[in-house]
Amino acid sequence: MKHNFGAGPAILPQEVLKQAAQAIIDFNGSGMSLLEISHRSADFEAVMNEAVALVKELLQVPDGYSVLFLQGGASTQFAMVPFNLLEKNQKAAYVDSGVWASKALKEAKNFGEVAVLASSKDANYTFIPKDYAIPADASYLHITSNNTIYGTQLQTFPQSPIPLVCDMSSDIFSRPIDVSNFGIIYAGAQKNMGPAGTTLVIVKDELLGKVSHKIPSMLNYQLHIDNGSMYNTPPVYAVYVSMLTLKWLKAKGGVAAIEKENIAKANLLYEEIDRNSLFKGTCVKEDRSKMNVCFVMENPDLEKEFLKFAQEHGCVGLKGHRSVGGFRASIYNAMSITSIHVLVEIMQEFAKKHA
Amino acid sequence: MKHNFGAGPAILPQEVLKQAAQAIIDFNGSGMSLLEISHRSADFEAVMNEAVALVKELLQVPDGYSVLFLQGGASTQFAMVPFNLLEKNQKAAYVDSGVWASKALKEAKNFGEVAVLASSKDANYTFIPKDYAIPADASYLHITSNNTIYGTQLQTFPQSPIPLVCDMSSDIFSRPIDVSNFGIIYAGAQKNMGPAGTTLVIVKDELLGKVSHKIPSMLNYQLHIDNGSMYNTPPVYAVYVSMLTLKWLKAKGGVAAIEKENIAKANLLYEEIDRNSLFKGTCVKEDRSKMNVCFVMENPDLEKEFLKFAQEHGCVGLKGHRSVGGFRASIYNAMSITSIHVLVEIMQEFAKKHA
Repeated sequence: MKHNFGAGPAILPQEVLKQAAQAIIDFNGSGMSLLEISHRSADFEAVMNEAVALVKELLQVPDGYSVLFLQGGASTQFAMVPFNLLEKNQKAAYVDSGVWASKALKEAKNFGEVAVLASSKDANYTFIPKDYAIPADASYLHITSNNTIYGTQLQTFPQSPIPLVCDMSSDIFSRPIDVSNFGIIYAGAQKNMGPAGTTLVIVKDELLGKVSHKIPSMLNYQLHIDNGSMYNTPPVYAVYVSMLTLKWLKAKGGVAAIEKENIAKANLLYEEIDRNSLFKGTCVKEDRSKMNVCFVMENPDLEKEFLKFAQEHGCVGLKGHRSVGGFRASIYNAMSITSIHVLVEIMQEFAKKHA
Repeated sequence: MKHNFGAGPAILPQEVLKQAAQAIIDFNGSGMSLLEISHRSADFEAVMNEAVALVKELLQVPDGYSVLFLQGGASTQFAMVPFNLLEKNQKAAYVDSGVWASKALKEAKNFGEVAVLASSKDANYTFIPKDYAIPADASYLHITSNNTIYGTQLQTFPQSPIPLVCDMSSDIFSRPIDVSNFGIIYAGAQKNMGPAGTTLVIVKDELLGKVSHKIPSMLNYQLHIDNGSMYNTPPVYAVYVSMLTLKWLKAKGGVAAIEKENIAKANLLYEEIDRNSLFKGTCVKEDRSKMNVCFVMENPDLEKEFLKFAQEHGCVGLKGHRSVGGFRASIYNAMSITSIHVLVEIMQEFAKKHA
């Protein structure tokens, strides 16, 4: 058995994969594959509707918000957000908490003025910037809830006087959130929600329709809302597998239940990192992510050997991002605590070998 | 057995579906699903490379062209083409041969001047406009090779003094083409190449980098070229299934071989439409598509009954688009001539019933 600690596209529940494979051969007993049916068929419309309903139920999305399944990943959202919200000669506020946040703000600079309220770049993004004033005259504030590369995560969200836009790609559905605090939430599916190929967007309807410039159709939230995410052919299979994953999450008790598991999983691993003298965490403790656990070795010469040792015991995807080095254990919703126990045991065994 | 005449997402080869299902459970014997491995893994990079190589081989793409697998469908290309090729205060030329062509030109109007060289709209797009002068001072000429809704198809491509941009969503890989005649070719995968969720783009490199405005990163061909279609997480599974489908096509003898089959299939069905007094084709004969065969009944009151009759015999997806009515038999590469024989027999049987 493999313990998949990869950062994304990432681990999915086994039950989901079984159903996902079946749908390729015969979807809903139709005698046809899900890959070859019309997105306008009743069967697929039911999938899209259920996916949207599950998002609304799991996150308790209030009235006045729309839920979209789009394409193009978070990177497309980096452009869509300013296209839809940023009027010429106005400014947007960004917090620079990592490379992806930095890409988002660079993209916005193509559209207008960008105020970078705070950045932890000089510290290689080892912490989440927190002390900053939010300009009341900016069109929106953009933040990133979890920084996959560095293993940092916002523990609480800022109270913002302007619409709060949040890239939740790597921790959506990992904990309860109060959607009413946000203007736009977006997330590529491939970390905590499904496979690569679709992007979830939750948008407060009243924010739209206020810019004076033309928005390319495919980048226009309102058009996708008006067409129920079916303005053109949606990424059928990625939406289906996301729907299955959300259904699995609901059966597990939803985001409140999974948060408890995620806390237990993260605590178990961080405790070992702090206890085991061979290892150390890479970011400040108060900002530690419950999704991506980054750590290195006190003696970097041992890292290659540990990676190999872990791999031999079925733990894969542990190599850290090149900008941090060492290891990154991504422990998304679908990972069971059993896999964390295996990793912890391997760390302990490795420590004994090198005592 | 179902005979899937749906217009898209459309029929895929059974061999492809079997492999595609296997990869969901265990990809390449890795013990992991293709849905949960990194797009930066050697295993997936091999898939992307093979997909690109197959496109180049099957279409004999010459040097100086790049092959991309993107997201967002043809609708995103409607904006990407002018973003990348249309300088402010310059104009683009479009031929309006159907609703999709019309959407493409409407999108371009957001960017600059659009010259509509010809349109068959007044005839409900029952023919392909052919007699038009191409303005040598336009930035490019945009055409649609096959009009899925109306069942019309370009039999020969215009010789254009300006870069020729072609939406080939519904007939790419159905016949040999001379790529060197084109500036950009694009196609949503979900008709003749794979499942929904990825878009093939073949672009002549020298056309890029000439506009003075900023292009949003995800809409910038050059950025995707520089990153081998992996600027961000690609739609992994859709690329994989497209690769499998192209491999299947190569094993069948490639586009020249499939063209022969496509001609035989289309001839068989059109002959029956022309022979059988109950049915008639909807578009002019010289423009008839070998991918989407549109026909109605002389007596429209019988159409519902025929649709039911066909369905009872396993022929599904035959309902015509609402703007044409009647029937549309989409007979893409993956459909065998056996299914056409079944449909023809049903038409004959139905005629006997109503003799």
